[in-house]
Amino acid sequence: MTRITIEQAAQYVGQRVVIPGWLYNLRKSGKIAFPILRDGTGIMQCVAVKSQLPEELFETIKDLTQESSIIVTGTVRAEPRAPGGYELDVENLEVVQRVPESDPYPITPKEHGIDFLLDHRHLWLRSRRQHAILRVRHEVVRAIRDYFDSHGFTLLDTPIFTPAACEGTTTLFEVNYFDDEKVYLTQSGQLYNEATAMAFGKVYTFGPTFRAERSKTRRHLTEFWMVEPEMAYATLEDVKQVAEELILHVVGRVLANRRRELETLGRNLEKLEAIQAPFPRISYDQAVEILKKKGSEIQWGGDFGGADETLLSEEFDRPVMVDRYPTAVKAFYMQPDPERPEVALGVDVLAPEGYGEIIGGGQRIHDLDLLLQRIREHNLPEEAFSWYIDLRKYGSVPHGGFGMGVERCVAWLCGLDHVRETIPFPRMLYRTRP
Amino acid sequence: MTRITIEQAAQYVGQRVVIPGWLYNLRKSGKIAFPILRDGTGIMQCVAVKSQLPEELFETIKDLTQESSIIVTGTVRAEPRAPGGYELDVENLEVVQRVPESDPYPITPKEHGIDFLLDHRHLWLRSRRQHAILRVRHEVVRAIRDYFDSHGFTLLDTPIFTPAACEGTTTLFEVNYFDDEKVYLTQSGQLYNEATAMAFGKVYTFGPTFRAERSKTRRHLTEFWMVEPEMAYATLEDVKQVAEELILHVVGRVLANRRRELETLGRNLEKLEAIQAPFPRISYDQAVEILKKKGSEIQWGGDFGGADETLLSEEFDRPVMVDRYPTAVKAFYMQPDPERPEVALGVDVLAPEGYGEIIGGGQRIHDLDLLLQRIREHNLPEEAFSWYIDLRKYGSVPHGGFGMGVERCVAWLCGLDHVRETIPFPRMLYRTRP
Repeated sequence: MTRITIEQAAQYVGQRVVIPGWLYNLRKSGKIAFPILRDGTGIMQCVAVKSQLPEELFETIKDLTQESSIIVTGTVRAEPRAPGGYELDVENLEVVQRVPESDPYPITPKEHGIDFLLDHRHLWLRSRRQHAILRVRHEVVRAIRDYFDSHGFTLLDTPIFTPAACEGTTTLFEVNYFDDEKVYLTQSGQLYNEATAMAFGKVYTFGPTFRAERSKTRRHLTEFWMVEPEMAYATLEDVKQVAEELILHVVGRVLANRRRELETLGRNLEKLEAIQAPFPRISYDQAVEILKKKGSEIQWGGDFGGADETLLSEEFDRPVMVDRYPTAVKAFYMQPDPERPEVALGVDVLAPEGYGEIIGGGQRIHDLDLLLQRIREHNLPEEAFSWYIDLRKYGSVPHGGFGMGVERCVAWLCGLDHVRETIPFPRMLYRTRP
Repeated sequence: MTRITIEQAAQYVGQRVVIPGWLYNLRKSGKIAFPILRDGTGIMQCVAVKSQLPEELFETIKDLTQESSIIVTGTVRAEPRAPGGYELDVENLEVVQRVPESDPYPITPKEHGIDFLLDHRHLWLRSRRQHAILRVRHEVVRAIRDYFDSHGFTLLDTPIFTPAACEGTTTLFEVNYFDDEKVYLTQSGQLYNEATAMAFGKVYTFGPTFRAERSKTRRHLTEFWMVEPEMAYATLEDVKQVAEELILHVVGRVLANRRRELETLGRNLEKLEAIQAPFPRISYDQAVEILKKKGSEIQWGGDFGGADETLLSEEFDRPVMVDRYPTAVKAFYMQPDPERPEVALGVDVLAPEGYGEIIGGGQRIHDLDLLLQRIREHNLPEEAFSWYIDLRKYGSVPHGGFGMGVERCVAWLCGLDHVRETIPFPRMLYRTRP
């Protein structure tokens, strides 16, 4: 007999199949039992009729406990009223492991506190909402990679172990390497991306990054995934265009392939369908004016806080691109605007609905003397940056790129309150287990 | 005028185009100069004829230095004798940054030592061989992801920060977390994969992993990328089948899409074209017999060293699968063969041509009591494994998976002597820069 997954049920209507999985839930009356089966690809109601089954088997089914592993044999039937559109008429059911009543599955349909759920993350992942979120995440990752792979970018994985700090050492995790040497976990692959972009033209890196921030906000993880493209012979305008195209591609793919999961999450799909080109483009100057009118205390020259980002994004129904921030608040490598050096050719993209910055990037300094000047102004160790400086000595060109955080994107697309549910095993200030 | 990449030249024959890039090399006579342009997608010979260009421009071209950044305007011409099949007849050439004679590009056509090249890795990546290797790597990564994405596997990124050791602490990198807490960098996502497989059925994780081994062999990096699939309701035979399919898929894709790069590397393509199903499958017992006949000192019960792996792989023209290793030399979670508990239901796949183990995996223990017994026998802290033990309490099923190292695969496919060239910025015992 054919072993199938619940996702494949539509192709097997009227056929006898075997589906291995777990008992998600059980409804029963005297003469009929409805084991709800989950198998990792979906959830399906099975129908076990007492009069059609051996007595012992029906009793076994009636006594099944939540999350017991079971292999169900039966015939697929189209049932428009069923959640997935199909049901399975049970002929046989093999119990692989029965969860005993004496030690029942800890996550029950009742409400649990967030600490309890995070302590049981290894099991919580089986719940319908968590399952939906992480399938959206997979689609987001695929969409990102497909976008870059089909637009001439070469993947070059930048290192996790880095000898020097990209933007200060206070938020770096220190690793004990061999023989008392210390290395740090990467916060960004950008500097390395600049080297690979000079070798490959258009590149991206996509991996975990680390920030030792003592933040307990709903937007922070200590370990998160980031995709970072970088392009040689590119300007701020090119960076904005790729950022817009990438976001449109990701939103489109999630809407096309993960609509069912978004519905499970109760996501307002109209808000995602409104994400169309062109995205509004405003300057930092304009953003400050908008924020002041809305009551923010921000003054020209200051960086936006999370509250400012939320306030700003409320003004727009799609991601907003804010460019030309004050040079003083931005990283040392940011290219100043030649016509107005007090602002840098950088851009942040803020997601709508208060989800904050999902993309930050811009054009990098390509002039050797200016870069050296900035490194000195920021009191950075020139020796540690010698390889980075080399990139301005040997065939320097205007170039730029950005970083996009996967977890914030997923939180936005899924409409979640906190990024902690967007990664299988979140790592936070006070959370390193399981 | 249209800006194109060298890779796109075939579509623009007879057309005027602009190609930004870098000077890879320059040949010249009195009346003609041949700047070799590289742009990250390929290499193209340009033809600058003195009589057809302003005098000053021709002098500029003749004086170009290696790796100067240039933007070339010209007409694409098919030229069967040219390496890429096309040449560019130069009309204009803009120098973006000229590398000065006083500080020339450090990597010249002459031979350099490996330490010099690794110290200049940020520039070495521009060389033809390194470029080819890393494009093969990109194809390998894409092929791996495409295989799993199209075979019902869900991507679930397992954590890098892990509280406990998977297989002993001696080869773990320790990270200073907050408030004097210590965490470790992951050596394998497998234990977490087992949790996600119970939630999603078929899963994979694909990210960097870390081993603090004091090894200086040609097969070891301290930071390397590994893909690890895991399947619920699966046996050792399922694991072998997926491993075989995956390798065939990767080899096929690299041969189809990166043939030019393999030729650049001088790879013997016949050896890769010989990689066809079915792969030879032998037992550990048989492997020991073969090794003894070939003069190895191995005795039944011992694990294979690198030399044994090389000796064994010489016997076959394709990857060989060796299964049922002695339980005593394998990890605590390995399912013993029910008919012969002294061997475990594990499998290693050895690449041909002496490239050693590229895959290791097998079936995991799913019985609660047996797992508890093994954890005690290995003196592992039961408390730290409580979440892993939970997986055997709540819907345990037979399951298995494997890990495949990207760098060893790329080294094999490219025919390289050392894995250090298979990753953009290799990290080794004495190498953490640039």
